[in-house]
Amino acid sequence: MISWKNLDTLKAYEKLSGLKNHVKLSDAMAGESGAKRVAEYSVPMAGGLTYNYAAKAVDGDVLAALAELAQEAQLTDKFAALYNGEVINTGEKRLVLHQLTRGQLGDDVMADGVNKREFYAAQQKKAADFARKVHAGEITNAKGEKFTTVVQIGIGGSDLGPRAMYLALEQWAKQNGCAKMEARFISNVDPDDAAAVLKSIDVSRSLFVLVSKSGTTLETLTNEAFVKDALKNAGLDASKHMVAVTSETSPLAKSSDYLAAFFMDDFIGGRYSSTSCVGGVVLSLAFGPEVFERFLNGAAEADKLATEPDPMKNAAMLDALIGVYERNVQGWPSTAVLPYSQALSRFPAHLQQLDMESNGKSVNRFGEPVDYATGPVIFGEPGTNGQHSFYQLLHQGTDIVPLQFVGFKKNQAGMDVDIQGSTSQQKLCANVAAQIMAFACGKKDDNPNKAFAGNRPSSIIIGDQLTPEALGALLAHFENKVMFQGFCWNVNSFDQEGVQLGKVLAKRVLAHDTDGALKAYSDLLDI
Amino acid sequence: MISWKNLDTLKAYEKLSGLKNHVKLSDAMAGESGAKRVAEYSVPMAGGLTYNYAAKAVDGDVLAALAELAQEAQLTDKFAALYNGEVINTGEKRLVLHQLTRGQLGDDVMADGVNKREFYAAQQKKAADFARKVHAGEITNAKGEKFTTVVQIGIGGSDLGPRAMYLALEQWAKQNGCAKMEARFISNVDPDDAAAVLKSIDVSRSLFVLVSKSGTTLETLTNEAFVKDALKNAGLDASKHMVAVTSETSPLAKSSDYLAAFFMDDFIGGRYSSTSCVGGVVLSLAFGPEVFERFLNGAAEADKLATEPDPMKNAAMLDALIGVYERNVQGWPSTAVLPYSQALSRFPAHLQQLDMESNGKSVNRFGEPVDYATGPVIFGEPGTNGQHSFYQLLHQGTDIVPLQFVGFKKNQAGMDVDIQGSTSQQKLCANVAAQIMAFACGKKDDNPNKAFAGNRPSSIIIGDQLTPEALGALLAHFENKVMFQGFCWNVNSFDQEGVQLGKVLAKRVLAHDTDGALKAYSDLLDI
Repeated sequence: MISWKNLDTLKAYEKLSGLKNHVKLSDAMAGESGAKRVAEYSVPMAGGLTYNYAAKAVDGDVLAALAELAQEAQLTDKFAALYNGEVINTGEKRLVLHQLTRGQLGDDVMADGVNKREFYAAQQKKAADFARKVHAGEITNAKGEKFTTVVQIGIGGSDLGPRAMYLALEQWAKQNGCAKMEARFISNVDPDDAAAVLKSIDVSRSLFVLVSKSGTTLETLTNEAFVKDALKNAGLDASKHMVAVTSETSPLAKSSDYLAAFFMDDFIGGRYSSTSCVGGVVLSLAFGPEVFERFLNGAAEADKLATEPDPMKNAAMLDALIGVYERNVQGWPSTAVLPYSQALSRFPAHLQQLDMESNGKSVNRFGEPVDYATGPVIFGEPGTNGQHSFYQLLHQGTDIVPLQFVGFKKNQAGMDVDIQGSTSQQKLCANVAAQIMAFACGKKDDNPNKAFAGNRPSSIIIGDQLTPEALGALLAHFENKVMFQGFCWNVNSFDQEGVQLGKVLAKRVLAHDTDGALKAYSDLLDI
Repeated sequence: MISWKNLDTLKAYEKLSGLKNHVKLSDAMAGESGAKRVAEYSVPMAGGLTYNYAAKAVDGDVLAALAELAQEAQLTDKFAALYNGEVINTGEKRLVLHQLTRGQLGDDVMADGVNKREFYAAQQKKAADFARKVHAGEITNAKGEKFTTVVQIGIGGSDLGPRAMYLALEQWAKQNGCAKMEARFISNVDPDDAAAVLKSIDVSRSLFVLVSKSGTTLETLTNEAFVKDALKNAGLDASKHMVAVTSETSPLAKSSDYLAAFFMDDFIGGRYSSTSCVGGVVLSLAFGPEVFERFLNGAAEADKLATEPDPMKNAAMLDALIGVYERNVQGWPSTAVLPYSQALSRFPAHLQQLDMESNGKSVNRFGEPVDYATGPVIFGEPGTNGQHSFYQLLHQGTDIVPLQFVGFKKNQAGMDVDIQGSTSQQKLCANVAAQIMAFACGKKDDNPNKAFAGNRPSSIIIGDQLTPEALGALLAHFENKVMFQGFCWNVNSFDQEGVQLGKVLAKRVLAHDTDGALKAYSDLLDI
């Protein structure tokens, strides 16, 4: 029997709270004991990845308390309830089924009168078939020319995840002969966003993917109109250049304005939708359906590992638990995501949405205020760029910021150069190893300005290469981590009521139905 | 006489500390009193911009305490000492002269035996002349073809600022007939970064700008070698495709490997170098020297306004002081930068470096530990994208994050579309106005999950359009804000010792001179 309890009512949390500042990381990571930690504090992940948490400020005592917390909070049971189709998104009274887009972890889930696994798989197949026809030149523009570019029009989860995934595999695909079409993305309602994209492409050879679950997202419909104008001005029939990704009940679903429509539903949150048709159509067009399927396989493998009850064998759960320890016991308010891979340049922006939109909540799943901190601020940029930027504060600032590194042994593009006795890839990897140790152990110096306090914890996810499988595993790891943290905090990680008020007020501004300060701001902005 | 004192030794700070939670923002911004605040809490900036702080949790009492703090901390005198050429960067025993790259605020500054204003102006003229010759086809590739693309190779301050400025003006320049060359940027030592850029350009028509003050930055030299390989493989003479931006004493300064060299010096920190040749060469090539000069004029005008002693008339100083109140009295650890302008997509990344690298310090300018918080975590993405992403946490999370909005009445590209009775630009502006009020006043609701606590403070910088002048003013505003905050915190905002340890350890890894955990990580990463 599952019981949903606030974190601060759990006995294990009381125990954990007694372990504040329990581990002195700079000591733990010094000398051979440090090497031993690196060897032992490691959990295999899907996609050939490994989660190494040697440089986190934990030890046997903290880990034991975290394992108790995992059990008392019933993390595994709650995950099972989710994938078996219970109404986990209680606020909106919805199931939470994004895992079903890439595999079946438990019972058949029936909803809307259909088997949902079959529904998602059918949509994926439809996207794959469509992509193959486009690649084969069976679906072309009016002149019979092949489409060369795919442009996703969406915002939030319909943009950040798919865009980050595309960038993550773009160079890999070029190197491996899977680059079928270039992809571009239009998201912002700022007309300069769409204008810049349209100027950079040949619209006559472009296929647009309009993504809106409800079919009513104002930014997206506005950008659709913008694009249709451009197509019309170029003498083209917009309906032959556009497909829709939407829900079956949306106004877009059966419109003759689109070449084809692909469906998702209310059980897939935007920020969890990269493995649904929201990511599937654009990624299958860009890289071919086989690459998208490999990406799904990596995610499915990660989901399976996340069902393991022992956190010492479940990287997503352990990562989540250590994060709760850092947020609620140590009191650290933010986390930096630092991938040592240029391909992951927009992955931090995706995680920022995934994490902050899921767990940035002040009430529990019953709507009662919670008395503890929930989701942290997430930010990040690729290393080594970040090293020459904000790392100064991370090393010597007054606040401690836990760090999540990601690194790969091999690069993607297969080009490299040997300078001063090492390749660029070796330099990249040397830097991430060096940073972990610099943060953990610091350095004494007679000049306090050159001294490093150390004791700044990090973990690293290491892979051989950023392949489609590794990317899928990485994506699902963080989805599952965020879910487990939401369970710990007893919040609903699957709604986003916090975005509503701004929408309502923006409509009032546009209708000139304002007074007071809102009218004053509107006047300042010439609306 | 200037005295450098810690923030917590100032009487005005004690007074300010007594004003914690002094203003209930949701009340202050309600009704007509809110409209009055919007009208009154406004300071003109350079470049036609306005700083409006009506939605900050301040009132006459707080502002009076901040004005006292400004005086007691001698902010205006310290700024004067800086621009008159005192050794403000005490750690590295250097002057701090980036303002001189765009104007002369005070005394002539002599160093290295020359008048530094004349030196910077001469370098700017050299860059302008060079750019004009490239545009006129007087400097071409070996076949006599014009260069069409400029590629900046640099990292940190040699990358983030210039890249953000380029993106900020790219669409404006295209619309106004000033787009002379496309610009690209290579920064990361990850070889996939350079590989992707090289694949996207015609190297035979590309001019590369190598930027390294010391001439020894490993990432940059590695990428230079990478590019030279590519040029050689294309049968091209690298020395005819590359210029250097460096210091006069660097190994690059007089090398025959470069078509030309442009100079900066130790008195311009990387993160403050966008208005020096570091930004000047690439931006003059991309947009023409006249546009770059307009950008400098905006910055110079902002610097001049920053010399005003009264913070109520000095937007940079007031912004800095309110930030100190929020960080040290209210205890808020991060700040989000949210430009409602797609052109400013990388401006938050630039500010992240500028702010966090400058003020992420734990010791004061004498090397003594400080007992108060210094620089906050800075992060951000353009609105409206952020609204569909991390704004959930900003509205309903357990922590308060102060917000910095930026908005413009007009877009840049001149394309727009009218949907549901409003243009995209109007929708964009309506959203920022709506967000300010949603954050400030919140909303009561019987369903606590749909309730908004409000009392989340923000300020907004409003402009007519993002022109070169407005961009220069925006850049200098934040440079000066960060400087004033550094004065308040009594830290040296102009060194970055925190980046050194990682470099040293990375070299040891590459030399295989490691043991313990560092060796263990190196082994895991196959170095």
